[in-house]
Amino acid sequence: MSKESPGITVSKNKDFSEWYTQVVLKAELADYAPVKGLIVLRPDGYAIWESIRETLDKKFKSTGHKNGFLPVLIPESLLAKESDHFAGFNPEVFWVTHSGENEIGDRLALRPTSETLAYSMYSKWIQSWRDLPLKINFWNTALRAEIKATKPFLRTSEFLWQEGHTVHATQEEAEKEVMDILEIYKKTVQEELAIPVITGKKSDKEKFVGAVYTTTMESIMPDGKALQMGTSHFLGQNFSKPFEVKYLDKNNAETFAWQTSWGVSWRLIGAMIMVHGDDKGLVLPPRVAPIQIVIVPIYYNDKDADRVNAEADKVEKMLKDKGLRVHVDRRDQLTPGFKYNEWEMRGVPLRIEIGPKDLDKNKVMYATRHIKQKLDLPMDKIESEIDHILEKIQSEMFEAAKKMLADKTTQTSEYSEFRVALEKGCFVDAGWCGKKECEEKIKEDTMADIRVIPFGAGNSGKCVYCKGSSITNAIFGRAY
Amino acid sequence: MSKESPGITVSKNKDFSEWYTQVVLKAELADYAPVKGLIVLRPDGYAIWESIRETLDKKFKSTGHKNGFLPVLIPESLLAKESDHFAGFNPEVFWVTHSGENEIGDRLALRPTSETLAYSMYSKWIQSWRDLPLKINFWNTALRAEIKATKPFLRTSEFLWQEGHTVHATQEEAEKEVMDILEIYKKTVQEELAIPVITGKKSDKEKFVGAVYTTTMESIMPDGKALQMGTSHFLGQNFSKPFEVKYLDKNNAETFAWQTSWGVSWRLIGAMIMVHGDDKGLVLPPRVAPIQIVIVPIYYNDKDADRVNAEADKVEKMLKDKGLRVHVDRRDQLTPGFKYNEWEMRGVPLRIEIGPKDLDKNKVMYATRHIKQKLDLPMDKIESEIDHILEKIQSEMFEAAKKMLADKTTQTSEYSEFRVALEKGCFVDAGWCGKKECEEKIKEDTMADIRVIPFGAGNSGKCVYCKGSSITNAIFGRAY
Repeated sequence: MSKESPGITVSKNKDFSEWYTQVVLKAELADYAPVKGLIVLRPDGYAIWESIRETLDKKFKSTGHKNGFLPVLIPESLLAKESDHFAGFNPEVFWVTHSGENEIGDRLALRPTSETLAYSMYSKWIQSWRDLPLKINFWNTALRAEIKATKPFLRTSEFLWQEGHTVHATQEEAEKEVMDILEIYKKTVQEELAIPVITGKKSDKEKFVGAVYTTTMESIMPDGKALQMGTSHFLGQNFSKPFEVKYLDKNNAETFAWQTSWGVSWRLIGAMIMVHGDDKGLVLPPRVAPIQIVIVPIYYNDKDADRVNAEADKVEKMLKDKGLRVHVDRRDQLTPGFKYNEWEMRGVPLRIEIGPKDLDKNKVMYATRHIKQKLDLPMDKIESEIDHILEKIQSEMFEAAKKMLADKTTQTSEYSEFRVALEKGCFVDAGWCGKKECEEKIKEDTMADIRVIPFGAGNSGKCVYCKGSSITNAIFGRAY
Repeated sequence: MSKESPGITVSKNKDFSEWYTQVVLKAELADYAPVKGLIVLRPDGYAIWESIRETLDKKFKSTGHKNGFLPVLIPESLLAKESDHFAGFNPEVFWVTHSGENEIGDRLALRPTSETLAYSMYSKWIQSWRDLPLKINFWNTALRAEIKATKPFLRTSEFLWQEGHTVHATQEEAEKEVMDILEIYKKTVQEELAIPVITGKKSDKEKFVGAVYTTTMESIMPDGKALQMGTSHFLGQNFSKPFEVKYLDKNNAETFAWQTSWGVSWRLIGAMIMVHGDDKGLVLPPRVAPIQIVIVPIYYNDKDADRVNAEADKVEKMLKDKGLRVHVDRRDQLTPGFKYNEWEMRGVPLRIEIGPKDLDKNKVMYATRHIKQKLDLPMDKIESEIDHILEKIQSEMFEAAKKMLADKTTQTSEYSEFRVALEKGCFVDAGWCGKKECEEKIKEDTMADIRVIPFGAGNSGKCVYCKGSSITNAIFGRAY
């Protein structure tokens, strides 16, 4: 970070898109790569991904999943084996046609997703019921050529994600897996990133190409746009049949297996930036912040400098010993005020200021990033209080985000109100007849889709569009 | 793993290459992907990589490195900016020419290595001496089209690795970084994988294309072939000049920075398989084994089954609570002998057998994988002894590998002896005049290269080839 870098120069409310880009770049999370559509993650951006990855990885492993590795190159013939799937991804596939000077016969796709490759392997590995369930996750990237302008974390042609691919002996077990994973996703996003989500199913129109059905978690962003935060698909036997993923059951009968696939991507980081950030820049939830606490020593002469720095070192050590991620800003050519601005822009959740006057009173000051406040903390309470302070920040951020989601969700059965609410940037909870035509007409009229049919959704009786009888309520919204 | 999979059917001494392939496939570390030259990692293979990654990652982070992310696509124009570098990689680059139906203007290379991309970013990020050192590591894959037959972990067109790229204000600091990293590599390989290495410099002919010099760690495999285990390069200003990685120093003078790059790959797993494996299959060092201890309950009637299984559960819990990776083989349709063979093939370092007779005497039997032996262990000693037993296995494996390296290293100043030793599959420590012509002649004659000029190498006075005066001794060997 260089001394001359200015803060965020636009307001989140005034120009959300420009605000977002400035935060990503100036907080040094990511930068544009030389190829259009691609980004590079700088250390802070990657550290947030590492934190999400570590949390999910533990949960996957504790529920019997293991990790594997798949190459990025998939032959065209294999990708084309499930036709709906291929048709869905084909327009955005990157094709490798040459290696060195040599032309390649069967063009190679850069993985848009790995169902086809994984299942061609699974069909070799699975013979008997004893080989099931097979539950493998892959931490890698997917590549899908984006035509629209790059939006770091939200719309890039290569993105970090995980893709899980499981195989089960029974439909029931596979469907349970789909739900177990969605629950892991939901907990992680709510507890770590402090973003509330609505879980449920996608409509047939919006499901994953090749799935029987798709479950999803959805959230709404401050600009009123819906964001899909992660999906978990029940594939049924749609892939096990063309890819011959079959096994001999206990009676020695050959049976096609039941499959699931699921993924979340670095899009979660984009959501976190949008939901929590403010006009000063990034606001990070403590659980995922690369630096949770920044300590700023304050002094204006050498004598104070010595005492203050010694105290800062002591506090740093104490907090590090507790396993916290702490940084002391020891740059002595910069003013405290400059440092405050910089760490605020970078989203550090908690700042501890150590100055000579406070030291005389055996205390420090602390400031939270999510709410502008400065509070006293007696020196001898830091160790016992610090976890509580961080947890409080985490939960207050989650509560604020829940309030935003509630404020931006409307229920109506009138189409005119429905349109107004979407125009204002809301999720609208409304009845739906179950017909694709109504979905399409609504999309044409309002640019809104069915984002999710929540689990346990109500039923207001009438389709908001055709006024025919509704099969369920659904959440409509405009997506990125 | 399926019941019908047979063990390894060739001897390591008789057909090393076939033995290696069988071990990789049958121990379920990896499998061939549909595209020639590519492999898939199965959970056990990936778990070993995760273990190596975790160890290195901790060491990198504790020495001030951070992780980042770079996309896999690099524009041809960027890759070509450092001409030696480009010439070196060009023949094996995979080229992306289309996205969907559209042809791409500037062809995109799949990353063969990321110097060019990283440094084009670094030049934007670095302005002042305050931004240095910049030390970023990337865990990703590299892609280099292999023409020769695939050899899992050793010769594949995509491989898992890490690449570190650092920038420093001074030459001295950059050169220290090169050595610090090589030391981290050496310790990790010796302590975790139990493989001794020789560290030193490459000759100019063998250095990384674009480097000022390359440091390396080398080892020899049981078939007498040399294997490069990892390299750490001093790039000097060779890249900082074309890529304009420069900074304003404390006197405000514009200065080109000094750079390093370094990497190890999953090749380390290949080395581990070759060095430690035997005719029964894989032999894993305890520190990296996905399963460190397998418990096999032995019983021939239901009454015994209950007591034995209960005891197995107890031992499993106790060992898991100690943080060990334990598996109880509870499959009751298989004989103990079948299970022993299977876990031996899969390389599990330690087996605990729990049977009714031993239980009567309040003890269990244990068998080590690296040396055929069965020993008693009193039940109440398991908890206190187990770490020691595993550490003993680890160090005995390292000692055995050190012995092999010593046995396969010869010193000579006679060219006839030199040729015989290489023919037998040895490292030969011999004098070298420093001329590339002698290196080339030796290569023509013997297929051997200078693998490494060890730090603190002796000097026997005469070049083994031209008999001119030698500048140093070097280790010659034939590589994969």
